[in-house]
Amino acid sequence: MDVKEKALELHKKLRGKIEIKPKYDVTSLDDLTLLYTPGVAAASMAIYHDNEKKYDYTSKWNTVAIVTDGSRVLGLGNIGPEAAMPVMEGKSLIFKLFGNVDAIPICVDTNDTEEIIGLVKKISPTFGGINIEDIDSPRCLEIVDRLEKELNIPVFHDDQYGTGIVALAALTNALRVVKKEIDNVKIVIAGVGAGGIGIAKMLLKAGAKNIILVDSLGAVYDGRKENMNSYKEMMAKITNPEKIKGDLKTVIDGADVFIGATGKANSVTKEMISSMANDSIVFALTNPEPDIHPNDAQAAGARIIGTGRSDFPNQINNSLAFPALFRAVFDSRKKKITQDMMLAASHAISNHITPDKLNENYIIPEMTDMTVKDEIVKAVMNA
Amino acid sequence: MDVKEKALELHKKLRGKIEIKPKYDVTSLDDLTLLYTPGVAAASMAIYHDNEKKYDYTSKWNTVAIVTDGSRVLGLGNIGPEAAMPVMEGKSLIFKLFGNVDAIPICVDTNDTEEIIGLVKKISPTFGGINIEDIDSPRCLEIVDRLEKELNIPVFHDDQYGTGIVALAALTNALRVVKKEIDNVKIVIAGVGAGGIGIAKMLLKAGAKNIILVDSLGAVYDGRKENMNSYKEMMAKITNPEKIKGDLKTVIDGADVFIGATGKANSVTKEMISSMANDSIVFALTNPEPDIHPNDAQAAGARIIGTGRSDFPNQINNSLAFPALFRAVFDSRKKKITQDMMLAASHAISNHITPDKLNENYIIPEMTDMTVKDEIVKAVMNA
Repeated sequence: MDVKEKALELHKKLRGKIEIKPKYDVTSLDDLTLLYTPGVAAASMAIYHDNEKKYDYTSKWNTVAIVTDGSRVLGLGNIGPEAAMPVMEGKSLIFKLFGNVDAIPICVDTNDTEEIIGLVKKISPTFGGINIEDIDSPRCLEIVDRLEKELNIPVFHDDQYGTGIVALAALTNALRVVKKEIDNVKIVIAGVGAGGIGIAKMLLKAGAKNIILVDSLGAVYDGRKENMNSYKEMMAKITNPEKIKGDLKTVIDGADVFIGATGKANSVTKEMISSMANDSIVFALTNPEPDIHPNDAQAAGARIIGTGRSDFPNQINNSLAFPALFRAVFDSRKKKITQDMMLAASHAISNHITPDKLNENYIIPEMTDMTVKDEIVKAVMNA
Repeated sequence: MDVKEKALELHKKLRGKIEIKPKYDVTSLDDLTLLYTPGVAAASMAIYHDNEKKYDYTSKWNTVAIVTDGSRVLGLGNIGPEAAMPVMEGKSLIFKLFGNVDAIPICVDTNDTEEIIGLVKKISPTFGGINIEDIDSPRCLEIVDRLEKELNIPVFHDDQYGTGIVALAALTNALRVVKKEIDNVKIVIAGVGAGGIGIAKMLLKAGAKNIILVDSLGAVYDGRKENMNSYKEMMAKITNPEKIKGDLKTVIDGADVFIGATGKANSVTKEMISSMANDSIVFALTNPEPDIHPNDAQAAGARIIGTGRSDFPNQINNSLAFPALFRAVFDSRKKKITQDMMLAASHAISNHITPDKLNENYIIPEMTDMTVKDEIVKAVMNA
């Protein structure tokens, strides 16, 4: 059986990857007298009289809603809220395994930006944080911006921030291997949705000077008129300082770093990779099928290759970041997730690999490495 | 320490009564390759191509949302969504313990009927069923009616239907003890919210002929003008056949059965109970403080007394019904919960107690009795 068949079989056997578990071993009616009526009234009234007690007497402190409309699930496109559910449950599994965070999938039957913002705000009393997931761009960007402003619980956008954190961590180490400096390399990012924008913002925060974002119409530059939105316009002002124009094939020529976040499988050719500078770094992050297959990237001369996949070296997977980041945010009861916190998380990931261990095929810790989680938690709590 | 102090201490120790538990013991990256990317894409695409597969590949088949706005929590009143959370988590605990159902609290920050209906519909792809809980009447009645019509997953209203099921079960057995027939007794129900209406509907379904509903203005009768709503008007047409008027004190005189669902502690006096017929049956169902304390009801001459409390005999608690009812509905994948199914559940509960065991202090099985759950499941699946 291949992975697909095995995965289907396992999904059918489990019928859901997560379940509710009582945190107390109820053995008698006396227990329920305390946990339910009449005892529970004391906890409710304590919260009624002092709202902050909700963090002491309920699971709010540790619960995040994973909200999606299923409009841009992995690289599968707009498959809708019900087909998105297996991915959200997988995400919940990883939240628990790697961060001991309780994450509830909320798959919504609307693609309307205002409706999604409104309903997330309305269900927010239940949750300690919100993670927006797999919503098409630029709607997701507006939803996240608005929720960050209008909610007083932390809002995360893994497709944007999580991708930025792990991509920067991987790039930091890849540049160490090839002995180049981030402020001195030409970086091309294909895809100007949540992933591409999130990566560009983190690289800028870390000192990158020469980033060119490329969408289906080519390089994004300040002054471009076609196929723009307010987020692309904002990015155009802070990237592509030389206002380079042209399609991906033109722009990638001579680049030191290529990062694919197009959401489209095999959208980058070997010829494009071949035209890059020496010691080129290629991250093809689209899931489950990358922007270019790692074997093709290697054949085309890339020196360091990373993907989102676990079956190749250098898995640049958000799972490294988001569970530990939320663990830190929940334990310190922070109300916002700042760029400084994300940079700290990214540095914790890259610094986890000591110089003697670093090489072309080991630029980022394995997803299952538990010690790196603790390092991220510490770094974020101190940020 | 009293119950209140013990309950607060336990709530503080637990910081939430429920958590997420992975259903698979992930031990390697290979497991995540199947449960998350790339494998998960196969499950998502299977659902995308055949929507019914959502019941095979996700936890939807076993997951219910417990939705409240916290506007009428137990007998505590409008304490809001965050103070409602401990009660909803307690409910989730009981769903799991007694029905193996995964129940997610969704406490919403709006009291607007249309907004609540809209958001429940929008988050419904995630859930296999909806349980509306502790929303003030008559808003809850409209929300439930509308959702039953507009959703194609089962909608339950425990305050209404659950209360009706267990109250009828208890009354059936109480009448057996005092050797009276349901179609031949005078029944007074105080409180014309979800509980009172739910009880009246179930008793009518079981053959009761003489029910008088009483609210703060007195008996509800066909033609009354003050303090009515469409639900009270509907009930006025099918209860109180003699159109009796007057306050509770007047109406309860000579009644065989009194059922309190006022949501107000100690709203019924000993004098009122004393004026009832011989072998009177008094159910004071308001929680956590009943409509009349069982000791007072006994002192006033009631022969059979039931409350919602676990620290007195005859605990008439919805927990007997809703977990098993949902278990049956989920296992048979029914799209609606009908009155026949509820009647079957009620009969399963009352018939669980054999005639030789039945007595004044044992008219309803204990909440922790697990065999009755199986009997309810069977009865509902056959209904």
